[in-house]
Amino acid sequence: MPRRSTHSYVLDSDRRLVGTVSLRDLIVARDDFTVEQVTRRKPPFVLASDDRDVAVQMIRRYDLLALPVLDHDGRLAGIVTYDDAMDTAHEAETESFHKTSAVTGLGTNMLQATVGLLYRKRVPWLVILVFGNIFSGAGIAYFEDTIAAYVALVFFLPLLVDSGGNAGSQSATLMVRALATGDVKLTDWGRMLGREMLVAGALGLTMAAAVSVIGLWRGGPEIALVVSLTMMLIVVMGSLLGMSMPFLLSRFRLDPAAASAPLITSLADAIGVVIYFGMATVLLDLSTGG
Amino acid sequence: MPRRSTHSYVLDSDRRLVGTVSLRDLIVARDDFTVEQVTRRKPPFVLASDDRDVAVQMIRRYDLLALPVLDHDGRLAGIVTYDDAMDTAHEAETESFHKTSAVTGLGTNMLQATVGLLYRKRVPWLVILVFGNIFSGAGIAYFEDTIAAYVALVFFLPLLVDSGGNAGSQSATLMVRALATGDVKLTDWGRMLGREMLVAGALGLTMAAAVSVIGLWRGGPEIALVVSLTMMLIVVMGSLLGMSMPFLLSRFRLDPAAASAPLITSLADAIGVVIYFGMATVLLDLSTGG
Repeated sequence: MPRRSTHSYVLDSDRRLVGTVSLRDLIVARDDFTVEQVTRRKPPFVLASDDRDVAVQMIRRYDLLALPVLDHDGRLAGIVTYDDAMDTAHEAETESFHKTSAVTGLGTNMLQATVGLLYRKRVPWLVILVFGNIFSGAGIAYFEDTIAAYVALVFFLPLLVDSGGNAGSQSATLMVRALATGDVKLTDWGRMLGREMLVAGALGLTMAAAVSVIGLWRGGPEIALVVSLTMMLIVVMGSLLGMSMPFLLSRFRLDPAAASAPLITSLADAIGVVIYFGMATVLLDLSTGG
Repeated sequence: MPRRSTHSYVLDSDRRLVGTVSLRDLIVARDDFTVEQVTRRKPPFVLASDDRDVAVQMIRRYDLLALPVLDHDGRLAGIVTYDDAMDTAHEAETESFHKTSAVTGLGTNMLQATVGLLYRKRVPWLVILVFGNIFSGAGIAYFEDTIAAYVALVFFLPLLVDSGGNAGSQSATLMVRALATGDVKLTDWGRMLGREMLVAGALGLTMAAAVSVIGLWRGGPEIALVVSLTMMLIVVMGSLLGMSMPFLLSRFRLDPAAASAPLITSLADAIGVVIYFGMATVLLDLSTGG
């Protein structure tokens, strides 16, 4: 085990960690030196109660071979080695990767996973999301008259509504990953929100321009106005929703990764439907009335 | 640098790698031993032309501190260390994590990312997907008469169509990750397909049962029949699409991670719309005709 050959931990009589001594230091030290004289003091350590990710991040950042684990009295409880840290990080990353698409804790190699296991890990979210999508359906049902009057509006429904979900998934994924790696802290919320609004605004304008072309082609200036205004609002709404949810989840000590693309998409769909047909009802009635 | 203190590489006169010798072996060896006598032969190595992931996976699996990199003549070109491997794996995982939501190669810390950078990394896919969703819109437009005749059908549109995208995203994410970690190889395609069909079938039946309840409540037995049959087909279609795309992409030497949730969702939406309204047109006309 190469990791053993590099350094040893030096403890006092109470098993409290004093420091580390490396094999090289022992070899080059004069014979009359005591261990204490070649001991390097204040080595980095983690507490037994720390989250495993803390150990992984320390080992990664400081290029450590091993990290001593101390109990609350400063006594050596054990060590975490770089190779355990690599495996832990690898598993944790696979798990949160799966969560981006609402697959929870497969906990095994894909090749070995049984049909039953895959079914059990996938079905709960799929069913939950079906009932989530009832809200989108209800939103559509509420505007049945508008739709009946302008069936052409339905052409733009997937295009507008999906854009909110897509923008939201992007924001959520960026935040989930940034929170997981520790690049972003909960306290960065305000700063992130301000920047997200600027990004979302720029994205919204671009998307509105793109869809206004399709609107003119398919339904004329009135439809073009409705769909481009809707697109602008939906993209901003989706982005802010996707960016905020991971923060909210971790604020309440839940896993930010639960803000999966399918979940964000379902929420953005429901809100998007209301924005779209609400906007259409108002603007088109006004224009036909005038 | 702890990694230097554990072992050194032994080369022949042509700089070809002979083996490794560890500091410990040198210390415990008798004084009259030559380096060659304490050299461990045939150490694991990678070729300079190998993909960086090969080195990462070897270091992770065999718990190595460092891995020699050889050129095609077997000469030592350099080494990859465990800490470089950890950083590489970390960056690669962040990148493919972002790709699951169609954000491509941010290549920086989220905290430092500028508004302009985030805009540039997010807008291309959002716009591409808008035009992708035109197919869904066109599908809806094609069935305008069916919709006009049964506006109630639109209530089930998001619910049915999103389920295909959700199931597809799950399958795609599982496959993308499995291919990236090397758990699944291209040659496992057939085996994966067979299992995916079983899983998708089971998921489809469950989803059909769930939606038939909503169908009965909202529109009676005929609608219930249409939506549950549609759900069954859509979930199976979405799963097979999501599972196949990563394989196809890597088959053509493209990054499987490009099979992002938003892309799978847009494709599944377009197909789902046609399945749904096609099924409705046939079944409802039959039933109203009889």
